[in-house]
Formats: sequence, structure tokens, C-alpha cells
Amino acid sequence: MPTQQHDSIRHLSDRLAAFAQERDWDQFHNPKNLAMAVAGEVGELIEHFQWLTPDEAAKLPDATREEVALEAADVLLFLLRLCDKLEIDLGAAAARKLELNAIKYPVEASRGRATKYDKL
Amino acid sequence: MPTQQHDSIRHLSDRLAAFAQERDWDQFHNPKNLAMAVAGEVGELIEHFQWLTPDEAAKLPDATREEVALEAADVLLFLLRLCDKLEIDLGAAAARKLELNAIKYPVEASRGRATKYDKL
Amino acid sequence: MPTQQHDSIRHLSDRLAAFAQERDWDQFHNPKNLAMAVAGEVGELIEHFQWLTPDEAAKLPDATREEVALEAADVLLFLLRLCDKLEIDLGAAAARKLELNAIKYPVEASRGRATKYDKL
Amino acid sequence: MPTQQHDSIRHLSDRLAAFAQERDWDQFHNPKNLAMAVAGEVGELIEHFQWLTPDEAAKLPDATREEVALEAADVLLFLLRLCDKLEIDLGAAAARKLELNAIKYPVEASRGRATKYDKL
Repeated sequence: MPTQQHDSIRHLSDRLAAFAQERDWDQFHNPKNLAMAVAGEVGELIEHFQWLTPDEAAKLPDATREEVALEAADVLLFLLRLCDKLEIDLGAAAARKLELNAIKYPVEASRGRATKYDKL
Repeated sequence: MPTQQHDSIRHLSDRLAAFAQERDWDQFHNPKNLAMAVAGEVGELIEHFQWLTPDEAAKLPDATREEVALEAADVLLFLLRLCDKLEIDLGAAAARKLELNAIKYPVEASRGRATKYDKL
Repeated sequence: MPTQQHDSIRHLSDRLAAFAQERDWDQFHNPKNLAMAVAGEVGELIEHFQWLTPDEAAKLPDATREEVALEAADVLLFLLRLCDKLEIDLGAAAARKLELNAIKYPVEASRGRATKYDKL
Repeated sequence: MPTQQHDSIRHLSDRLAAFAQERDWDQFHNPKNLAMAVAGEVGELIEHFQWLTPDEAAKLPDATREEVALEAADVLLFLLRLCDKLEIDLGAAAARKLELNAIKYPVEASRGRATKYDKL
């Protein structure tokens, strides 16, 4: 099965760049502003969960789940824009971080524990 | 050139699921907790920018840029975990959101304006 | 019993202004930067709670509770600085907001329901 | 001039507690949920500033300034609820934090520098 284009971080990032350029929005899309926009969208994301019990949050009604999906998308889209402007390859950074996490959180030491690495 | 695996949202998400399962972390990774973790990481991301001018933020020293890359990766990783747990395909949601944004922000009406769609 | 000075929003805000002025920090304390600083501190605050169950979060060990107290203080301190720079009287704004909330959330309609006012 | 009641952190906190109790909202107001609510409100606060230049953010139109005042109030109100539920005296914590900051940021070493204390 071929990968769908929207599964590609690079592809999404390029589409966003074109979207902003068409609208002459690069003047607003500097890294400082984009970091704020990510934070703003995360605020909207978290509001969906704040009054729910963990069980309720794990079983969202379909309509809410779609709202959450679109908020999560907003976070991703601004995060991609931020990385694009800083010439950060987000997929590669995520792979690097996963490797660092594998070192910081060895399987044996961290099994079943939500303890930060510096306290393991 | 073939797409690198870490450019694939699905591939990253699957690696994260395996990482968590090996460590028996699924007990902590419910959607409510993961939404909080996304917010926590965004806080760390934004701290890199808070005292910089927009110009300084656009020209980060290499060492800072790498720190920002790893913070952005943390945001992505928890966002992917959140979506995985909610059975949300984040790439597909991003594509849907882009299409909605194209409708909410027509090129002519929104050119050069950082105005929210409901005030255009 | 006389009110202690640190219970006064105005008093705390004035102490912060003096603290910043002594250090020549007003150059960094513009509203945009301060809004980011509030968000950064909230990220640190929320990290204390993200892996805890609601029950665990309600019964923090003393050491954690003191860490949370100091993070909450950081949020307040930057929030006060932000308001000071915008010439917003935060205590008066809080009183206004409480009055608005009393209208938006009538006791009968909202009893026992975490529903946003526009859906009551 | 006597202190106005809404300048008192304790007074505001007590009013909030009564407001929640009347509406039977304490069931939702556990510390985990309230920490999320603080983060959600900060997201709304920061959205007001994200596309503004630092100069624009420092000179908000009156209508925007009032919106910001009410968002800042929301942050304070949930922060007070959080502290109340954890039996944290937020004013006292802020005073403690100010004293710690005076030690971490000596006037001479930190004058004119937005450098974190551990890098001074």
C-alpha cells in the first residue's frame, strides 16, 4: 500500500508553506509568533479534556473526537510551520529524540514507572 | 529518493506505541494525561522564545536550535500518542483541517491579514 | 487580624515592578513576552500533575506540594507583571469576571454540570 | 484609602469557593482538572498576542485590553481554585518565591540580562 501524502511530515509542511505564501502570511509567521500559536492551540486542545474523568476522556463521543482531531491538527500545523521557519526537520528531530529517550529510559529501569529519567 | 521512515506520521506513531508497551507505560498514557503532557512540553518549547525579540527568535544559535528541535519533537511525540490512543489519524486530520482552512480563509479576503476567519 | 501584605494583589504587583526595575528587566517585560512567560510557567505547573490519577493529584506529598506552590507563584508573578504593563487591575478584573460568570452560570441551570455556558 | 476586597487573594479565593459550592461544582474541581483549566485559559490569553508585534501588544485597543483583562482574570480564578484545593496560600507562596528569586538573581549579576539563574 502506498503511503498517503498526508502521512508525510515533509509533504504537510510544504503544503502549509504554500498556503501561507498564497495569503502573504509569512510576515506573521516568525518563530516567536508561531511558538505562541502552538501554545494557543494546545490550550484549545486541553479544554476538551479538563472536566472529564480519565475514563470519559478515553471514550469521547464521535462529535467530540472529531473536534479533538481538528484541534490536534491545529497544533501539528503550527508546529510544522515553526519547524519549517527554523529549518528544523521535525521527523528527523523526533527520531533523534526517540533514540535519546531509549537511552534515558532503559526498559528495565523504567518499566511501569512514570518517573522522570533524572530520578530513575 | 525514497521517503525516510521518520517522515511518516504512522511510522513514528507505531514506534512510540512499541516504546511505551515495552516499558509498560500504557497505564499512564490515557488521553487526559497525554493532553496534559502535550501542554507541558509546549511550555518548555515556548520558554526558549519568551525573552527573545522576533529577530533573535528567527536566528537561533545552533545549540539553541537543537534544543528547540528536541522540544518540538517532544510535543509531536505526545501528540502522536494522544491521537493513537483516541484512534485519530493525525495526518488525515491535518489534511481535513487544511481543507477547512482553505474555505475559512479565502485567498483574496485573507491576504496579508492575521484576522480570525469569523472577523474577515 | 490585619491583612498580610502578600495577600494584596496590588502590593505583590508593586514589589515585582521594583524587582524588575532594580535589575533593568523592563526591557524584557513587554506584554507579548510576559504572556509567553505565563504560558511557560503553566507548562511547568501542569507537568507535576500529568501522570497522576485525580486521587493522587489531590493528595500530593508535602515536597511536591511545595514545588507546586512555587510554580503556581511563578504563574501569578508573571500574570501580575503582564497586567501591570497593560495597566490592568487584575483584582478588579477578577471581580468583574465573577459577576459575569454569575450571569452566565445561573445556579439552577448549572448545578452539577460542567457544561459551558453557551451550551447550558 | 481602605483596601478593596477584590484586591485580597484570600477574599477572591473564598468567593470562588462559594460560587463553586452553590453550583455543586466541587466534583469537577479536583487539582488535576484545575491545572488543566489554568492551561486552557492561558491558551486563550496568549492567542490575543500571537500575531501582534511587541509594539502592537504594548498598545492594545481598549476593547482588546478588556478581553485580555477578562482572560487574565480566568487564569487567576482557576489558579486560586487550584491552590485552594491543595491548601496552598498563593499570596504566601508568591512572597516565598520573590525571596528565592532575590537570591537566585542578585542585582549585580542579573542587571540587564534575561539569563536563567543557573547560567548567570
